[in-house]
Amino acid sequence: MAPGGGSLVSLGLVPAGPVSFLDGVPLVDHHCHSVVADDLDRPGFEALLTEGAGPAPGTSAFDSRLGFSVRRWCSPVLGLPPHAPAQDYVERRAELGAAAVSRAMLRATGSGSLLVDHGFAAGGLLDLDALAQTAGIPVGEVVRLEAVAEGIADAGVDAAGFGEALRAEVARRTAPERRPLPVACKTVLAYRAGLDVDPHRPEPAEVAAAADGWLARRARDGEPLRDPVLLRHGLWAGLDTGLPLQLHTGFGDSDEDLHRSDPALLAGLARLVEPLGVPLMLLHTYPFHRQAAWMAQVFSCVYVDVSLAVPHVGSRAPDVIAEMLELAPFAKMLYASDAYGLPELHLLGALRFRAALGGLLEQACATDEISPADAERVASMIARDNALRVYPRIPA
Amino acid sequence: MAPGGGSLVSLGLVPAGPVSFLDGVPLVDHHCHSVVADDLDRPGFEALLTEGAGPAPGTSAFDSRLGFSVRRWCSPVLGLPPHAPAQDYVERRAELGAAAVSRAMLRATGSGSLLVDHGFAAGGLLDLDALAQTAGIPVGEVVRLEAVAEGIADAGVDAAGFGEALRAEVARRTAPERRPLPVACKTVLAYRAGLDVDPHRPEPAEVAAAADGWLARRARDGEPLRDPVLLRHGLWAGLDTGLPLQLHTGFGDSDEDLHRSDPALLAGLARLVEPLGVPLMLLHTYPFHRQAAWMAQVFSCVYVDVSLAVPHVGSRAPDVIAEMLELAPFAKMLYASDAYGLPELHLLGALRFRAALGGLLEQACATDEISPADAERVASMIARDNALRVYPRIPA
Amino acid sequence: MAPGGGSLVSLGLVPAGPVSFLDGVPLVDHHCHSVVADDLDRPGFEALLTEGAGPAPGTSAFDSRLGFSVRRWCSPVLGLPPHAPAQDYVERRAELGAAAVSRAMLRATGSGSLLVDHGFAAGGLLDLDALAQTAGIPVGEVVRLEAVAEGIADAGVDAAGFGEALRAEVARRTAPERRPLPVACKTVLAYRAGLDVDPHRPEPAEVAAAADGWLARRARDGEPLRDPVLLRHGLWAGLDTGLPLQLHTGFGDSDEDLHRSDPALLAGLARLVEPLGVPLMLLHTYPFHRQAAWMAQVFSCVYVDVSLAVPHVGSRAPDVIAEMLELAPFAKMLYASDAYGLPELHLLGALRFRAALGGLLEQACATDEISPADAERVASMIARDNALRVYPRIPA
Repeated sequence: MAPGGGSLVSLGLVPAGPVSFLDGVPLVDHHCHSVVADDLDRPGFEALLTEGAGPAPGTSAFDSRLGFSVRRWCSPVLGLPPHAPAQDYVERRAELGAAAVSRAMLRATGSGSLLVDHGFAAGGLLDLDALAQTAGIPVGEVVRLEAVAEGIADAGVDAAGFGEALRAEVARRTAPERRPLPVACKTVLAYRAGLDVDPHRPEPAEVAAAADGWLARRARDGEPLRDPVLLRHGLWAGLDTGLPLQLHTGFGDSDEDLHRSDPALLAGLARLVEPLGVPLMLLHTYPFHRQAAWMAQVFSCVYVDVSLAVPHVGSRAPDVIAEMLELAPFAKMLYASDAYGLPELHLLGALRFRAALGGLLEQACATDEISPADAERVASMIARDNALRVYPRIPA
Repeated sequence: MAPGGGSLVSLGLVPAGPVSFLDGVPLVDHHCHSVVADDLDRPGFEALLTEGAGPAPGTSAFDSRLGFSVRRWCSPVLGLPPHAPAQDYVERRAELGAAAVSRAMLRATGSGSLLVDHGFAAGGLLDLDALAQTAGIPVGEVVRLEAVAEGIADAGVDAAGFGEALRAEVARRTAPERRPLPVACKTVLAYRAGLDVDPHRPEPAEVAAAADGWLARRARDGEPLRDPVLLRHGLWAGLDTGLPLQLHTGFGDSDEDLHRSDPALLAGLARLVEPLGVPLMLLHTYPFHRQAAWMAQVFSCVYVDVSLAVPHVGSRAPDVIAEMLELAPFAKMLYASDAYGLPELHLLGALRFRAALGGLLEQACATDEISPADAERVASMIARDNALRVYPRIPA
Repeated sequence: MAPGGGSLVSLGLVPAGPVSFLDGVPLVDHHCHSVVADDLDRPGFEALLTEGAGPAPGTSAFDSRLGFSVRRWCSPVLGLPPHAPAQDYVERRAELGAAAVSRAMLRATGSGSLLVDHGFAAGGLLDLDALAQTAGIPVGEVVRLEAVAEGIADAGVDAAGFGEALRAEVARRTAPERRPLPVACKTVLAYRAGLDVDPHRPEPAEVAAAADGWLARRARDGEPLRDPVLLRHGLWAGLDTGLPLQLHTGFGDSDEDLHRSDPALLAGLARLVEPLGVPLMLLHTYPFHRQAAWMAQVFSCVYVDVSLAVPHVGSRAPDVIAEMLELAPFAKMLYASDAYGLPELHLLGALRFRAALGGLLEQACATDEISPADAERVASMIARDNALRVYPRIPA
């Protein structure tokens, strides 16, 4: 086929069941990234199929659930048969060109809007306007707090003024008149210091003292922001905007210590945030998604997803989603892909999520655990409605 | 139907399989609480459907696996159709009255006895005599050590005498001639200080010094018992009785830090208790039930359950129980509901447990992994016999 | 039947599916131990069915998934009907004699080679030559670093010379001309100090200082090697050989603190080893196998298995393997049994692994998630080819 649109169902990419509760529900992908603008060679493509630095010697990143999923489910979007060899896939992709492939994949997701973190390794990616045009849907921006802080530092600020400068810049970057529309803040505290830090807002004097050290080290050798006091100051500057705060937890790349990204470590922060009414969006969470689900049940401010895991785990997505829904209230779980670089990840996220949640709900109806009307309502809540309720500024 | 009795099967609440290994086995619910005495309005009912402080703004606690389970499986007990709307359910419940509803639900569980912790937020709950009468079965008391310690403090004791006074009061409260019959002690160390504390019995001088500080703070501002030394002293006072010691681990409410309630943190305590022969009953354990199962395999004194999770996770109960039984010896797992406040939780605990364990055993027979005779024996062990062997005083 | 050979399929021990991707693939069991040389009475047999010190009073180690698996799947190898009573099983086993039973069980595994750690409680076990003869296949040796260090200490060495003596002895014990052929080193750091230690190579002066203390304590009271500095020195001596380094993680016996054996705690070590190109083989990993799989994806030097769990969890093996394969690249997972003492464990490891992985792959073909050609390739990678690629000296 020629790439260029059509829903997953019309592409034959989702087995149409007798009742398909997610058909026709436009997803809100509440956390993702942009896609690579240029064509990719095979090493470049494989590097984006793993959260690692690259495959081990003598191995291919295609030999994984994610790689097999690409060959099975994305090949038809490129006009190739299912299970096309990896080399054929990469060559056909280059032949069609990145722009056409991204357009086809992103439009096949059936999304209604994308909330995009564009503060991480954005060089080489489409900017948000181009992404919106390619996907054919509105895009909101997730403001990455550490990127803002590092920008402030590099623009020149003294230690005494750093705290207030960061607060003001976060306010400016999240103003409702900005375009692309800012919809949320995000912190990667888990990568930079771990989630097991004191969650309190630091005092101005502490901030100034910490800035004094970090600004000097950054000027000297470009040190990324890893100081826990400054990270906490940034996090609280994000909370001050009143916009939902996204937090990286769980599954990520080799920069993090996984055991220090357990979302349960955020209970102390949740207790502080609970009275403020600011939503805490725990991203990814896998393999701690049961812990995250507990957080979502016991703290009214906490919301959860299993982004990144969903495209990676392939046909295991129903199991992972079912585990999260053991304790997570249906009003507290959201959809996200956390796709980065490859539009295949946006597509696989959407495809696996629809098939998984839809399948779980069909099974629950078949065993008379829930009524079809409730199933339809739950599908819509998790796919879209929870996001529309929690994010005050989803772009329409 | 008119509430008032009948087994789960006669009520059509459990699909009767070709072989139903748990039919007719009266459960020992080895850890639960009492039920609310008065009628509940909708907010009051919803507050008891979650371990959190209440649902998030714009959401309902009925929108969860537990809420859907109530509507599906408890509605028929109230004479409503399955999947009755939440509002209908709460109204019908009030119409019938709390007493009739509790009587119907508790009797439908098919339990043989209840071991009840009545030391937590017991105001507004039926006392244990009334609970026994409502349920129509004997009730034993689980003595909550922290409640005893706080009672001692409030009754007036000096720091030098606190340690011995607590020991004596625990002994008095667990005497075999007391009624309701004391069957076990329980500690909520996980909530109060975390399970990652030094497990050794503290010295009398340490206890006196810690009591000196806490008694003053409690007199001044009512501070709950959170001092690790005093908590450990209480725990060892419980062990000194020789009765099984129940420990809260895993899933609980927002007061706890979940990662500090991992039952594997109790390995040090288990090593100290192993030679004493006092059973350590690890309650709840989810989402650390695989870790708990490991404890049950490697320490002969350790026993486990997945209480609280079983009613909450609904139709996922077979998965959770199967995970625990990966490593847990069949003689080391027990049944409990950890139901609190709503008799729906007692009923759902029993219903899900019977269906889940029964289903797993039927499947194991169908694939010829175990013989029907062994399946029947394992069902009986976990549902009742292990409790009868481990608790020397189950009330008959 | 008379024990003495035949494949699992010819013995009727694996349900032959329409496509059986693991038929005819000789397994490399990349981590196991030897078997008990003499006949076992019932207590002796039961003690080897659990990772604990033994069953609780009034219970039997046969009442577990592993015990039921022995009765179901190993009985026919002894000429008994499936589900034979435990007592019959132990008696028949003694009647046939340990040598015949071991020969039958080990040969039924369909293994191509065994990599054996013979440094743990090896008294009473067949030596590696006898094991190779009994199994009828080549055996390689996994050199246990802590056993080497304790041997050095007991042979007499002074603190100043300990570090170099250990390094030299590890080099000698792993020389390619040794027989049995040394194929890997192994550390039980998890048992001795926990995996949450500083991963850096210690300085010679630190090693000498630590040796000074430990050698004195060992001479006085036989203290096992638990000093973190010396353990790290041993670990780095192992890495210096360039052979794959096996690390105990996760599931083990009651000597360990399970939460300190989470393989994710090894991220710091993996970052140091990544540039060296030495493979880190994370053994067992359960119940942290999802964390381990993440390590295998993000660090090119990391490889994983679910040994020990596979025979223990019985018919749950497909679930555990599927969870590991959510994130683990197919080129990074290996087969191992971690069997110790009982050849039943070698057999059950192989049987469960073949049935589980084969079944998962058949299901993936049936749902058209992967092609049969890919399924066959993945089966072969995990069962054998990854080991052949990673271990430079697998004995042929």
